[in-house]
Amino acid sequence: MKGMMMHRPLLISGILDYAAEVHGHATIVSRRVEGDIHRTDYPTMRARVVQLSLALEELGVKPGDRVATLAWNGYRHMELYYAISNIGAICHTINPRLSAEQLGYITNHAGDMLLFSDLTFVPLLEKLKDIFPADMRHVFMTDAAHMPENTLNAFCYEDLLDGQPTTRDWPEFDETTAAGLCYTSGTTGDPKGVLYSHRSSVLHTLQIAASGFLTDMGRDARILPVVPLFHVNAWGLPYLAPMVGADLVFPGPNLDGESLWTLMEEEGVTSSWGVPTIWQGLQGAIDRHGRKPAALRQIVVGGSAAPRSLIERFEQSGVSVNHAWGMTEMSPIGSHGALAWQIADLPFDERMALKSTQGRRAYGVEMKIVGDDGKRQPHDGKAKGELYVRGNNITSGYYENDAATAKVMDAEGWFATGDVASIRGDGYLQLHDRSKDLIKSGGEWISSIDLENIATAHPKVAQAAVVAVPHPKWDERPLLVVVAKSADDLPTLEEIQALMLGSMARWQLPDDIVFVEQLPMTATGKISKLNLRESLADYVHPDLR
Amino acid sequence: MKGMMMHRPLLISGILDYAAEVHGHATIVSRRVEGDIHRTDYPTMRARVVQLSLALEELGVKPGDRVATLAWNGYRHMELYYAISNIGAICHTINPRLSAEQLGYITNHAGDMLLFSDLTFVPLLEKLKDIFPADMRHVFMTDAAHMPENTLNAFCYEDLLDGQPTTRDWPEFDETTAAGLCYTSGTTGDPKGVLYSHRSSVLHTLQIAASGFLTDMGRDARILPVVPLFHVNAWGLPYLAPMVGADLVFPGPNLDGESLWTLMEEEGVTSSWGVPTIWQGLQGAIDRHGRKPAALRQIVVGGSAAPRSLIERFEQSGVSVNHAWGMTEMSPIGSHGALAWQIADLPFDERMALKSTQGRRAYGVEMKIVGDDGKRQPHDGKAKGELYVRGNNITSGYYENDAATAKVMDAEGWFATGDVASIRGDGYLQLHDRSKDLIKSGGEWISSIDLENIATAHPKVAQAAVVAVPHPKWDERPLLVVVAKSADDLPTLEEIQALMLGSMARWQLPDDIVFVEQLPMTATGKISKLNLRESLADYVHPDLR
Ligand SMILES: Nc1ncnc2c1ncn2[C@@H]1O[C@H](COP(=O)(O)OP(=O)(O)OP(=O)(O)O)[C@@H](O)[C@H]1O
Ligand SMILES: Nc1ncnc2c1ncn2[C@@H]1O[C@H](COP(=O)(O)OP(=O)(O)OP(=O)(O)O)[C@@H](O)[C@H]1O
Ligand SMILES: [Mg+2]
Ligand SMILES: [Mg+2]
Repeated sequence: MKGMMMHRPLLISGILDYAAEVHGHATIVSRRVEGDIHRTDYPTMRARVVQLSLALEELGVKPGDRVATLAWNGYRHMELYYAISNIGAICHTINPRLSAEQLGYITNHAGDMLLFSDLTFVPLLEKLKDIFPADMRHVFMTDAAHMPENTLNAFCYEDLLDGQPTTRDWPEFDETTAAGLCYTSGTTGDPKGVLYSHRSSVLHTLQIAASGFLTDMGRDARILPVVPLFHVNAWGLPYLAPMVGADLVFPGPNLDGESLWTLMEEEGVTSSWGVPTIWQGLQGAIDRHGRKPAALRQIVVGGSAAPRSLIERFEQSGVSVNHAWGMTEMSPIGSHGALAWQIADLPFDERMALKSTQGRRAYGVEMKIVGDDGKRQPHDGKAKGELYVRGNNITSGYYENDAATAKVMDAEGWFATGDVASIRGDGYLQLHDRSKDLIKSGGEWISSIDLENIATAHPKVAQAAVVAVPHPKWDERPLLVVVAKSADDLPTLEEIQALMLGSMARWQLPDDIVFVEQLPMTATGKISKLNLRESLADYVHPDLR
Repeated sequence: MKGMMMHRPLLISGILDYAAEVHGHATIVSRRVEGDIHRTDYPTMRARVVQLSLALEELGVKPGDRVATLAWNGYRHMELYYAISNIGAICHTINPRLSAEQLGYITNHAGDMLLFSDLTFVPLLEKLKDIFPADMRHVFMTDAAHMPENTLNAFCYEDLLDGQPTTRDWPEFDETTAAGLCYTSGTTGDPKGVLYSHRSSVLHTLQIAASGFLTDMGRDARILPVVPLFHVNAWGLPYLAPMVGADLVFPGPNLDGESLWTLMEEEGVTSSWGVPTIWQGLQGAIDRHGRKPAALRQIVVGGSAAPRSLIERFEQSGVSVNHAWGMTEMSPIGSHGALAWQIADLPFDERMALKSTQGRRAYGVEMKIVGDDGKRQPHDGKAKGELYVRGNNITSGYYENDAATAKVMDAEGWFATGDVASIRGDGYLQLHDRSKDLIKSGGEWISSIDLENIATAHPKVAQAAVVAVPHPKWDERPLLVVVAKSADDLPTLEEIQALMLGSMARWQLPDDIVFVEQLPMTATGKISKLNLRESLADYVHPDLR
């Protein structure tokens, strides 16, 4: 029997309408590319989004068309999210740190008809102009006064809005209509497109709202998204903040520790979301200032494993750390580390142990662990296997890429994450590695994440990565690659091994250490193991020297 | 273009599975009908729900069948919610305070095949046994040791569970499948059935989670639902608590102020939800004890208008009041009074003014105000009209009752609430009356809620109601009906009129006062204006005496 309830499509436009109607007190602060600080609110944003949407329609944008962005975190970028999706078109956010080749690949693969860019990127666009789809038009996200000379025949953002009406009713369409397109960050190969729907983005937002991020942070949510709007929707914040009435503080292009510290201090930021490397930078600034930004109470860390030492230092300086795991393919949040309040009085050590895991699954995300034999493994904290996920916020296949899709979808309709994990009886997820980064030694797997985690805790280590190197007898052996805090005071392999022996078996320890000045990074601020392995192609294991 | 995301049905079973997996630390406390205190947790509850669901199937329950409950707030009642809905059957919760006639009407109208009852109701069932559907079977919600003699050939709840397996995968079906059935409380006429779907209940839960109830309460959510599980799903708490990992404290049948105070104190309750009359009772206990229950930080008040004086007294004793508005037809939450944190430092008076409104709409609930002329009114805080609502949590028509349905659905698919309201520019909803309770004097409307609100603030008034009485010249005039705090110290009409003149026009004031020992109540603890008007049938206006 069917229920007798209304069916209203879950549409992204409803989030902004809601914020404009009931969250008029919230503010959106942006450090602009132009240099100044800009403040707005949701009623104003809705009016401008209406103008922008009408301008898009005048430029010929139709439902289903792809409109791309190349921009930092700021209010105009957020306006584009809504204006494009609200009229049934698809907001394709592009990572500006991609290579020229990748930029050309994805704009053509997506078939973008318009590209909205921050001024920062004008020189790049001029240089690359031939790589883009032939009929793609450019819009620069600025006003007439700041409009640069260009050979791209570009439109000016504020001119497009100017004079347009400020109210409209949004079109209604099916909730499964595509709303956004984001390519994976390319850590493991060619970028693959994930095509979000209105349903998936709205449900993802509701799922985060229900999952304790907010209660963990307290009532006065003034959130600084360091995670870029060009990377998986800034983990959902441009939808979450208006839904719950949080303030947003957009940092623009300057994401070094000092700039972040100052902006957080000046703007009273209470929560900030980003990848581990960002937090290493902020920790440096906290050390220099001798204290955290006054209002900061919570950081959300994800994108790659947060080392326990990093978590502990933030917690000790009064900032609660929420260690989250997710993927572009998951909108992105899969699990998060907000601890149950019922165990708030656990000893520090036990709390930190829990916070170092990838936390518990968000409501709406189902998980299974599959062993090498293809069998489901128990959730006992011991059995490891590839992690598969299922849920409304998870991709059912890559955009126009059947070959890549076939590799990740299983017969029951689950998505293979490529991550190796175990799940404890009480629901905590522990990631051990990407399956491509696991080290196979003598028929047994060694987790690079576990080793890196410990190495990073050594006082002389700034960053650490562990990769497999070939070995005639053991197949592969782990090699430790370290960026030292000071070139004059290097840690020794033995010191780090001694630390590792606390929780690892002797045969799992790296046999050698290599010092580098910096580690290769991906466009989203992760250590690129692909590039690191390439750069170590000539490395020879001590047993062979 | 369609998005490429998984479609997973939004099913109620997923909520319990989630809680059992990730919220193992939460506890569910019940004061049992048997007299003792019972404690359980979500993993245990899931195991028992599985057993119960298998027992239901053995008793012949099929998808779409209606299974009824007649029970107080306790863990067994909550188990029924999940066991029935999870197998695609329909959980029909019945208000035990209905008249015998209404009980017979709704069990037959629903076609209930099983009735699960608390022991309290066995004598009633014995007396009424002929009014129920002929083939309906009885189950008593107790164990073998407490099973009473009966002529109903009743099953014993714990015996049904005993020996059943404790794990299963839940069946999957379309998210629009019916899950629950609840009849309106009958304030204005015959009860009408609302048939909730899995989609509507899951979305309603997510909408509440996103709407600030939780952040308003703080992290450690230990919630006591005074609002009954037999009345609109206890406002969604049996779904919300497991989703967010809150503790639940079920009070059983004793809902007087003293019992509630003691249970809250003993169990460290932080939040409690119920109708205004309940909070008047608790306020009495707070006065006697000289303080609030130690951990209590928030109450949610809804079901009828919360008088400002009540709100202020709770706020002054350190309990934040969230004034919510809803309807059985809305699952039920439509709006709520959690204030934006950005205005937390407003002066007390301004905050109380905002908290006395019915708050702002929950995400997912759209509202429009329609004037007598059928035209949409502006949201300017001034224009009044009938409130219409739209959303996934809102009924599209009454169960097997086309005549009633036709009266409430408009041409655009909105639901007519029967409430007269205005909406401020910043989103705050102000209810002025039920349209049936409005007083029409000389062609102008007078709001009974506004007058009652002021009268209740008088120190000598315990409860107040204002109803229309016929008048030859003015058509109708307002009459004030008062329950005094002490029969020896009655307030005067002039005193109360003087209070009212602060915010009402002279012609809007009641012309007369009538004292009664108590006001007629509906089954859900609201003042029954229907019965009150009937009891005043012989009243003559002073102008006619
Ligand atoms: N908290 C975390 N701990 C460990 N690993 C994480 C965490 N969060 C994310 N990851 C890693 O990041 C991956 C998802 O990252 P993302 O979607 O940005 O693209 P990518 O996997 O880095 O790039 P590509 O898929 O193109 O190779 C996860 O599969 C996981 O390997
Ligand atoms: N906070 C509130 N302030 C004023 N009125 C409220 C509030 N909350 C609920 N109500 C009233 O209660 C109504 C919904 O109550 P409910 O669904 O329990 O059934 P009922 O309307 O009392 O009964 P019936 O529909 O059978 O007459 C609303 O339409 C409104 O009139
Ligand atoms: Mg990936
Ligand atoms: Mg009603």
